[in-house]
Amino acid sequence: MSYRPHFNFCILGGGQLGWMMVLEGSKFPINFYVYADREEPACRVARCFKEDYKKIIEECDVVTFEFEHVDEGPLTLAHDLGKLLPGLNSVNLKRARHLEKEYLRKEGFPVPRFITVENGDEALRVLRDEFGGVGVIKKSEGGYDGKGQYFVKGNVEDFRFLEKEGGYFVVEEFVDFDYEASIIAVRRGGEFKSYPGTFNYNEKGILVYNYGPYENQQMRDIAKELTSRLNYTGVIGIEFFVKEGKVMINEFAPRVHNTGHYTLDGAEVSQFEQHVRALSGLELGSTEVMSFSGTVNVLGIQEPPLSVLQYGTLYWYGKNSATKRRKMGHINVIGENLLDVKAKIEKVMKILYPNGLDL
Amino acid sequence: MSYRPHFNFCILGGGQLGWMMVLEGSKFPINFYVYADREEPACRVARCFKEDYKKIIEECDVVTFEFEHVDEGPLTLAHDLGKLLPGLNSVNLKRARHLEKEYLRKEGFPVPRFITVENGDEALRVLRDEFGGVGVIKKSEGGYDGKGQYFVKGNVEDFRFLEKEGGYFVVEEFVDFDYEASIIAVRRGGEFKSYPGTFNYNEKGILVYNYGPYENQQMRDIAKELTSRLNYTGVIGIEFFVKEGKVMINEFAPRVHNTGHYTLDGAEVSQFEQHVRALSGLELGSTEVMSFSGTVNVLGIQEPPLSVLQYGTLYWYGKNSATKRRKMGHINVIGENLLDVKAKIEKVMKILYPNGLDL
Repeated sequence: MSYRPHFNFCILGGGQLGWMMVLEGSKFPINFYVYADREEPACRVARCFKEDYKKIIEECDVVTFEFEHVDEGPLTLAHDLGKLLPGLNSVNLKRARHLEKEYLRKEGFPVPRFITVENGDEALRVLRDEFGGVGVIKKSEGGYDGKGQYFVKGNVEDFRFLEKEGGYFVVEEFVDFDYEASIIAVRRGGEFKSYPGTFNYNEKGILVYNYGPYENQQMRDIAKELTSRLNYTGVIGIEFFVKEGKVMINEFAPRVHNTGHYTLDGAEVSQFEQHVRALSGLELGSTEVMSFSGTVNVLGIQEPPLSVLQYGTLYWYGKNSATKRRKMGHINVIGENLLDVKAKIEKVMKILYPNGLDL
Repeated sequence: MSYRPHFNFCILGGGQLGWMMVLEGSKFPINFYVYADREEPACRVARCFKEDYKKIIEECDVVTFEFEHVDEGPLTLAHDLGKLLPGLNSVNLKRARHLEKEYLRKEGFPVPRFITVENGDEALRVLRDEFGGVGVIKKSEGGYDGKGQYFVKGNVEDFRFLEKEGGYFVVEEFVDFDYEASIIAVRRGGEFKSYPGTFNYNEKGILVYNYGPYENQQMRDIAKELTSRLNYTGVIGIEFFVKEGKVMINEFAPRVHNTGHYTLDGAEVSQFEQHVRALSGLELGSTEVMSFSGTVNVLGIQEPPLSVLQYGTLYWYGKNSATKRRKMGHINVIGENLLDVKAKIEKVMKILYPNGLDL
């Protein structure tokens, strides 16, 4: 008799999150299939498919996604076949910001003050009349990594290009936070575990670096409550604003998350391995961190910056072209304490962006 | 302009060591090519080749091996082209036990007392006359994982089947060690680093489990001296007998090593990532351990023992058939201290071998 790994795990989307899921999940007796074009990162390490998705999804034991804005066809099919994890309820919240925000507020989670409007013209009016001209206008659909987000600081006139835009918008108070933070958690069948949090540094809506552990019980409690209400399965990333010791949810992502990349080197079990475990019916792994650690994103840089290897481990996604702001790789560093990690992050930042960040 | 990873890294042999090299090395901007048959573990995650090896090796920037007993053709070609790392001097010592032993003794490293003989008949005679009938007879060629090793404890008559065998043998004193240990080290261009050691438990010449860290300066010093004399590049594994605080080299392996698998979960940088770094001209990584940790081998078991996942991470190699003693996977555990690690190893052992080990 001969044994071959037989659990078929399907990932919709072939970016770096899918790539790391495959790298980390390939230690298990699991076959990975990725819905993506051939040149995408995950296709270097797994079998990719696209046109024949109906056949492949039929053969998959579980289907997940590494990105919310994935094609409707395979997502709906996976849901209809009862194979989609996390479930469509979570994905749908994520695909329209106003639904996510409304849901969080309705369920009583702390969120910034916001008003949902139905077009850009109304967004500008509400921002002027209800928020005194200072706030954030966010398109409801298609937004991630700072796309579709506009920070208005009194200069409403500069955003008149939004007047003609249709579709839902969220108009939100500008939160003058002390810092941003996030937490990675995992749930499966009522079992819940969370990693400690991290401090995050975003610029123009995109993560530049983060580090931890940053212990915050409010964040852990919210993660537990939110995943429970969503009847969630898998890894989730939740971003927070922290001000005077109080947390507010900025947003969540129903999947592995950029601020959890440090777990590859700093935690006992990575978020990617954890996600694969949760979705494959395997025992959840430890969420303990082993070290102070952090991640620096490589944004818009064409050639792999190999000299960073003196400070940590480089994950190079192997994308074709480095357009501005594009995530091309990341570096994980670990250290003796938070200051040591921060010092290494500074050194890596200087190598990556000798002339400063320009996002 | 478009960037594609361009460094070509070739591995001779497609077993679990090659598989983990690819998994760990795929984070770097490196293409992996593996000389192996399609059904071997490493071929699930890298491009495999065999017949057209001349063409592929021409295109490789570096060629290494995950097993000493690899086909002569590609090994020699890689050497002739100046691409083989670690060098042929180290491989050759390893492919004939008597050369390895003679070399270590000549260079003044502590080794058990041994005598090299030219056939099986002479081996039996020497064992009887020079070692009082108690010792170990080792075939010089083709030996690994206990193959070609015979432990004789007075019962020389039971081994008369060796009388007809030709080829070099090593006859060695039986070392009544306190324990076995090993160390993983790495060298590149004069730079040397070593991981702490581990305690190893072998049965019938095959590793069952190991754990650490076990700090032993003699082992670190020997690793440094040996790799220096060999002008070595890459990761090396060196196995020792420890008796009354003194160490003797049992053998070394010029490659990543089974007793270094714990580094995947317990060290800042794994032995596999380290080997890829050293051979690709990249900065060496940290050899610090982050936790007490250990590895249990899954030997001769057909189905992946998923229930071990409550104690650690399972690496399942995906081999076709589980013949007796065959390494099918391993489990890495980490713990608060050595006792905690040892307790987890015991629990995993009970799951794997409920009726005890039968190797």
